[in-house]
Amino acid sequence: MEPKKIAVEEVDTAYDLMHKMVHRTPILRSRLLDELTGCTLFVKTENFQRTGSFKMRGASHAVAVLSPEQKEKGVLTHSSGNFAQALALAAKDQGVKAYIVMPENAPKVKVAAVRDYGAEIITSGSRPLDREEMAEEVRQRTGATFIHPSNDRAVILGQATCAYEFHQDRPDLHVIMAPVGGGGLIAGTILATQLLNPSCSIIGAEPFNVDDAYRSLQSRKIETNASAQTIADGLRTNLGDINFPIILGGLERIIRVEEAEIIEAMQWIWERMKLVAEPSAAVPLAAVLKEKERFAGKKVGLILSGGNVDVSDLPF
Amino acid sequence: MEPKKIAVEEVDTAYDLMHKMVHRTPILRSRLLDELTGCTLFVKTENFQRTGSFKMRGASHAVAVLSPEQKEKGVLTHSSGNFAQALALAAKDQGVKAYIVMPENAPKVKVAAVRDYGAEIITSGSRPLDREEMAEEVRQRTGATFIHPSNDRAVILGQATCAYEFHQDRPDLHVIMAPVGGGGLIAGTILATQLLNPSCSIIGAEPFNVDDAYRSLQSRKIETNASAQTIADGLRTNLGDINFPIILGGLERIIRVEEAEIIEAMQWIWERMKLVAEPSAAVPLAAVLKEKERFAGKKVGLILSGGNVDVSDLPF
Repeated sequence: MEPKKIAVEEVDTAYDLMHKMVHRTPILRSRLLDELTGCTLFVKTENFQRTGSFKMRGASHAVAVLSPEQKEKGVLTHSSGNFAQALALAAKDQGVKAYIVMPENAPKVKVAAVRDYGAEIITSGSRPLDREEMAEEVRQRTGATFIHPSNDRAVILGQATCAYEFHQDRPDLHVIMAPVGGGGLIAGTILATQLLNPSCSIIGAEPFNVDDAYRSLQSRKIETNASAQTIADGLRTNLGDINFPIILGGLERIIRVEEAEIIEAMQWIWERMKLVAEPSAAVPLAAVLKEKERFAGKKVGLILSGGNVDVSDLPF
Repeated sequence: MEPKKIAVEEVDTAYDLMHKMVHRTPILRSRLLDELTGCTLFVKTENFQRTGSFKMRGASHAVAVLSPEQKEKGVLTHSSGNFAQALALAAKDQGVKAYIVMPENAPKVKVAAVRDYGAEIITSGSRPLDREEMAEEVRQRTGATFIHPSNDRAVILGQATCAYEFHQDRPDLHVIMAPVGGGGLIAGTILATQLLNPSCSIIGAEPFNVDDAYRSLQSRKIETNASAQTIADGLRTNLGDINFPIILGGLERIIRVEEAEIIEAMQWIWERMKLVAEPSAAVPLAAVLKEKERFAGKKVGLILSGGNVDVSDLPF
């Protein structure tokens, strides 16, 4: 069955429903980065978002749209990353039980963060299949609603509120950029941009090493990655059947960047903007630095997607 | 000769003269740090200030108040730290030549930053006396006006604009805190607080290892440090005859913190607030964490003084 198309006006409804559950993150500027890139950059600081990433938006919205019966039985996901923390806190905010399946090799600090938000953690084997099987087992046992981190209507609409605020605060952007991982953020960015600033170009950014989305746009079907060898650990996942049609119809293109370019952009953000950004969040700036001509003289909005990083284990 | 006392109303004049030369830095909050400390924290992000620290305020004001004749001959300081960059850029902004005496062992990255701002760098030996002698030699040769990084009327009034903005944006603070190094920032904080919110307590924070200001308040004369062994490299200097009387009359007290407490507070700021802060800037938060009872339930303003740090050389 073809998934029901999302109408751009649904972003308005999503924003009204959940914007009070998240921070309206500031948009920052940097003269030094403007000089370096030759364009006028606006940076939406989702590293300041609750739980340290934009994922809090999608998680909050996904919990908010559940029926009372669904809320009673709780929510469930499998993730070792930012969505785990986000769903745990969003559920806690709304008085809903959260079950989070995390692989046995997940970083202890991330497991502790999810537990601090009051979620029940279920440990699975470390292969993707292990997690999915464990999640299905929990779903059958508890009746909890499974929420996918990126390929879910309500999650995509929640992520759309980031670009929605961006265009409200900066109605003059020529280009808006976001990293492309599982596709939830970029799909939401497309919906909000089509709604509020349809003449603004939308460009994705992705590591060369996991360029499944780039190849998917070429082949017009969902491609996967042979390896997951990138420092941008939030961008290793593939697109899904709900977000891919949106991406296919809305994106100007995807710029791919090398690992060294990601690290360099991350260091610029830390040292010049004084912001703690995770590698995935530095990918759009790396793309601007790589193709300066495309952006010269333009007003470019970058979604700095998150800041969850172990500061004792940095690539520089 | 007794230096002429600074009237608090002079902060108004200083603000009017130079506020357009600097950023009005945002005031950020953190629910997690509020929970951790038991008070309501407001953080004035001078790490986002031009040149990465509050020093840009004092330098901009010190250049702005010069006579046309003085501006013609240039400005001069000796510094290997944030004031060197700040004076170089403030001078460039205002079309004034800057001479910066830097010790031969100054970090290359800092020398390069000062040079990028168009200042003339004069290299001296590494002992404090070497720098002072070299600065005096440059002064006699060029006729440039020497500007002290912290013990200078115009510099103190410039630093005061930080707390001035803080109280304008947050007129309800119970306590305002700043680190104590050479005394320029804390003296300016006192002046602005006496002007705009006289019932607000003013508390300084200082590393145990360089607790000259703490001891100076005890003995009521300017004390020096036997060693300079602290990670908070911005706080190694002593008070001066212009800022000390202000500090003596205006400070509730100074809280001293251990090196490990500074590093821990710095890590909280990085990992929880997602801000790049230099060690000196973390000292006030370390003080709040050390004496939670003093701050319980209060609205506490912290001046996060700067973010200039080599991210490839971190203490965690």
